[in-house]
Order: sequence, then C-alpha cells, then structure tokens
Amino acid sequence: METSNPLTAGPDNAVVWHRDRLYLLDQRALPERADFVRLSSVAATVQAIADMVVRGAPAIGLTAAYGVVLAARDAYTQRGTGWRNALEPEMARLAAARPTAVNLAWALARMRQVSDSLGEIDPVPAFLDAARRIHAEDRVANRALGDLGAALIRGPTNVITHCNAGALATGGYGTALGVIRSAYAAGRVTQVYVNETRPWMQGSRLTAWELAHAGIPVTVQTDGAAASLMAAGGIGWVIVGADRIAANGDLANKIGTYNLAVLARYHGIGFMVAAPTSTIDMRTCRGADIPIEARDPSEVLTCGDRRFSPPDVGARNPVFDVTPAALVNALVTECGVVEWPTADKLRALMAHADARGCLEKPVVI
Amino acid sequence: METSNPLTAGPDNAVVWHRDRLYLLDQRALPERADFVRLSSVAATVQAIADMVVRGAPAIGLTAAYGVVLAARDAYTQRGTGWRNALEPEMARLAAARPTAVNLAWALARMRQVSDSLGEIDPVPAFLDAARRIHAEDRVANRALGDLGAALIRGPTNVITHCNAGALATGGYGTALGVIRSAYAAGRVTQVYVNETRPWMQGSRLTAWELAHAGIPVTVQTDGAAASLMAAGGIGWVIVGADRIAANGDLANKIGTYNLAVLARYHGIGFMVAAPTSTIDMRTCRGADIPIEARDPSEVLTCGDRRFSPPDVGARNPVFDVTPAALVNALVTECGVVEWPTADKLRALMAHADARGCLEKPVVI
Repeated sequence: METSNPLTAGPDNAVVWHRDRLYLLDQRALPERADFVRLSSVAATVQAIADMVVRGAPAIGLTAAYGVVLAARDAYTQRGTGWRNALEPEMARLAAARPTAVNLAWALARMRQVSDSLGEIDPVPAFLDAARRIHAEDRVANRALGDLGAALIRGPTNVITHCNAGALATGGYGTALGVIRSAYAAGRVTQVYVNETRPWMQGSRLTAWELAHAGIPVTVQTDGAAASLMAAGGIGWVIVGADRIAANGDLANKIGTYNLAVLARYHGIGFMVAAPTSTIDMRTCRGADIPIEARDPSEVLTCGDRRFSPPDVGARNPVFDVTPAALVNALVTECGVVEWPTADKLRALMAHADARGCLEKPVVI
Repeated sequence: METSNPLTAGPDNAVVWHRDRLYLLDQRALPERADFVRLSSVAATVQAIADMVVRGAPAIGLTAAYGVVLAARDAYTQRGTGWRNALEPEMARLAAARPTAVNLAWALARMRQVSDSLGEIDPVPAFLDAARRIHAEDRVANRALGDLGAALIRGPTNVITHCNAGALATGGYGTALGVIRSAYAAGRVTQVYVNETRPWMQGSRLTAWELAHAGIPVTVQTDGAAASLMAAGGIGWVIVGADRIAANGDLANKIGTYNLAVLARYHGIGFMVAAPTSTIDMRTCRGADIPIEARDPSEVLTCGDRRFSPPDVGARNPVFDVTPAALVNALVTECGVVEWPTADKLRALMAHADARGCLEKPVVI
C-alpha cells in the first residue's frame, strides 16, 4: 500500500508511473490548472509528446521510456513470446514524436539495450525497471550538474533564463533551474529574470510557477526585453538548458536562445548551458545537422484565445534555434564542466562519462 | 459637402479630423475590429493617448495637435478672450500623456508658436490649420524619407521590421514601413518579416494588417525568432522607426529594438532607423537621458484574455529600449540620410532641416 499519493500536482511530478499507468502533468494548462493526463497505451504517449502535454528534452526522454513499457505490455498481452516484433514499430513511432530533443532517441536506445538482453519472457518488469532507472538517474544528474553550475557563479548576482529547463522539463530538480536552485541556496543568485518565451509561454507559465513554488524571486519579461536588462547591468549569467548538443558543442534549444547568446556575448555576460550528458549527441557533428522542428503557425498568430494577425497572414514557427559553441562560456553536465566547448573537449567529456563513477569525480575541461 | 466618407477604416486613417471632432481608429482592437473612437474634448484625447487608442510617435504628436484644437475651442467658449490662460494647463496635460515619444512635445511646441502669434480672437481656426499642416507635413515627410531609405537598399532582399512604424503610427504612409513600401514598389524588397512585438503585438496586429492591406508579402515571427532568421541568411536590412532620437544619434524605440540592433551587427546586416526630423530631440544629449515609459506588468503577464503567470509573480514592462548610435548604419529622415550617426552629423542634419527646402535637397551626411 502506498502511504502518500504520488499524483500530487507539483513541479517534481511532471512524469509519474503509478499503478501500471503513466501520468503526465498537463503542461499546456499550467499554472491555471494542474491536471494529470492518464496514459494507458503507447499511441496515447506518442500523441501526448507531440501535443506537448509533456515537454523538455529529458522529460520527453523518460516519457518515451515509460511509453516503451506500455508498448511492451500490449505486445506481450497480444503476441506473447513474439512481443519483440510488435515492439519495434512502436519504438519507431515514439522516436518520431518530436524531432529535435535527442534525449528521446537516447532513452529509446537505452530501452533497446534492455530489449536485446531479454529472452522471450514477459519483458514488462525489466522495461519498467529500466525506465525507472532512467528517471532516477536524471534526477541525480540534475542535482550533480546543478551544484557544478552553481560553483561557477560568483554571486550574489541576478541571472536570466529562457523557456523552462526545470523539474517540469526533466526527471526532477531541473537543468538550468537546477543550477539556479543550487546557486540560490548557496546565496549566489538573488533574482531570476525569465523570458516569457513565446509562443508557448514556458517561461511565463512554467518557470515562473516552479520558481515561485521554490520560493526563489522571479520576474517575467518579454523576450525582447532581455537586451535592455543586460545593458542596465547586474546580470551575471544567462543560464539555459538544451534539447540537443552536437559533437562540436553547438546546441539546439528553445527559439530565442541563440538570440540571448549573442546578446550575452555583446554585453560581456557569461552564457551557461546546463544539460545531462544524455543531451549530447556525438553522432550529430554540428549545429547545422540538428533537425529543427517547425510547429503550426497558429501558435504564433494566436495568444491566449485571441488571434492577433489578419486571416490572410502567415507566420514562421521554428521552435528551436541553434547556438554556436563559440558563444558558450560553460557547458555544465553531471560528469563535469566544459569551458568554451570544442569537439575535442566534448570527446574528452564523453570518454569520462562512459567511465564508471563520473558523478563522483566530475572534471573541468 | 464632403463627397467621400473620411471615416473609412484603413491604415491611412489612423487620425481623422471630421466635422469638428477628432476620430482615432482604435488600435487596441485592430485588426479584429476597425472602430473609430470619437473625441470631443482634450481630456478624452489625453486619455486616448495614455490608453494607446493611438500610438506611434508621429501619430501621437499630431493627435496632441488636434487635442490643442479641442482644448482651444472649450477655452474660447468658456473664457472668451481669456482662452490662453485656460489652454496652457491642458497643453501640459497633453505633454504628460506619454513620456518617451518626443513628437508629442514637438507638436505642442509648434502649436504654442501659433498660440503666441494670435491675439485675443477665436484661436480655433488658426490651431486647426496648424494641426492639419503638421498632419500633412508628416505625410509628405514620410513619402520623402521612404524614397531616401529605399534607395539605400540593394535588392531584391528580405527585411525585418519590429513593432509598427507604418501609416497607423504616423500621419500616413509610415516611416519604417514607408521605406519598405517605397522599396517594395521599386522591386528592392521581396518579403517582410515582422516581429510580433510583445506585449502589445503591434507587429502581429498592426504591421501585418497594413502590409497585407498594401499587398506586400509579410510573415509574422516571435521576437525571439529573429536571430535564427538572420543566421539563415537572406535578410538585407533591419528597418525600424524611433520614438526619440537623442542629439548623439542614440534612439529610443519599442522594446526589442536594441535587441535587433545587436543581432543585426553580429550578423553583418544593416540597421536602418527611419524617422522624421520631428523625432530628433537636440535637447536630449544621449540615449541614457531619454525617459523610458514602464507600463503595467499585467500587459506582460497576460496575452489575449489569458493570464499566463501565477498570481504571485511580477513582471518588468519597459515599453521602449535605447539603441546606441554605434549600432545604426543609417538614420533616414525627410531631409536626408545620416550614415553612422554622431552628434556632429546630427547637428549638420538639423541645420539643413532648419533651412528652407530641405525636402527638395536632401543631404547624405
């Protein structure tokens, strides 16, 4: 018997496995409503990822891992020992749910390793165990990288973040917000400015909610207001997450991130990218090779319930942009910090990450 | 008898004097609804400027000029030959309606000159004549600066604009959009990208409406998406208006403009500021001296009818930012073009503007 209800709406419960079902805290409705969406099938999980019920690269990854559990259960129920043949197409559908975040492919690769090690027996317990491990490891990684990132901040200072790279975007604690939490706890961050992050308002809705929940002072601003804030002074760092980091250190993150990176450089402000090593894709050579998702123009042309543009006007809606490694002062992972990332340095980091105990002995490269 | 109805809702009818009343096309409701607000008093005019029924520096200026006509009529009706004493406090209220756009003060100074030249007779005809002259001159200035700006564009190319510096923001034709109209007509601009311009969505609502009206291809994007568009190539110029240009060439314009100026420089894209000389304030030495209006945080925390942030979260909402002259490739006015503006060059431009016939002999400085 469970002693507490795991389905308590809070930033740390974005993705919950409970009584054989996957529950996602519906991020489209937050913070107005904190509702869980219950998923019983892999098809529903694919749809939930595509519709952004869950978002944020690590959270998408672990959702896909639980999606494999749901797929395996159906496959084993329907096909018995032939479950493997039924599973592969479902994993391909999960992989295609959203194109940019590499954590999705990474988590599926981890699940495929489990699959390969299994016989013809019921695969569900092993898959569930693997998904839970991915989930728990992400939480641990975020705590670790949060502390490593916080150590780079000579505070007290104010910081700017973009979109939501918090508990809601991950297995818990957050990446960019993990750094900010750790830095705030250490007295190194006084005030967080968050860009509202059009068109989806992750900053205004999700990051503001998370930070208010954590008791960390947060002020929202429009995405266009970041430059004037930097010029006014008092900003020590811009801290963001990433959806995919290429082998040379270029990274894709929420649209507007590249914008901030250029502004940070112009104003002499440090630009920190916080992400677990599962976000680093050594098979993508450089930023230009990262597939950038374009979503429906209506996301730009409307806001709230109002359509702003005339009916005959269109919009471009790339939901990520690419920041070149040359604009990154520090890439912070659970295995160590890479200053001024290059292909050589990322190779060294990933070699360290592949070794045992990287969490205990983080490197600075 | 008037042969056509001047109260036809269209971009060129943002400010209309008709049968002794001032009509403003309500820019808060465009393009969903095209309604005129009828103003019969200076108090209502002050409120309409503060509430952004009308916006855009030149349009605010000429609205204030018509507001003086309304004030003068009331003053003369109530005080007769003592109208002047009643008028002065109303002009001060108009001047304080919004702080950043200098065209407001400039138009009031023009009206005060008229006032000084009048005796104790009914001042209304002379004031109305002056307001109409300011209105007509602004239209002529925009045509002139539109052509001067267009001549700088080696096209065909695509351009980015921000906010709305079009007919709706001026006496007609527009400043930044005047340049774009002239350049499009000359085959030098193929496609216009407009930043939606949070929080008020002037780009998404007003510029998209104006350009669609004029048959010029326009695509809306979020303010954060400009950097990735610049990196993708094909953008020849960023073209914006201004609310106040200081004597050294620094300028205040809609929040996000400075952002774009930094990005344009980083990507080697020209940054053009288009504004009539009435926007140049030789009594403001530099950008840091320009008063920057901060509006209610609720403009940021809500969009459409939806509040996005939790109730306990605040926002900063400066509605203008300052772009240093060093980031401006060309300042385009009706009297000529200033390349790489400096205090010396602006002094030379204004000396030329004060001479007769500057429109006929525009300079390049």
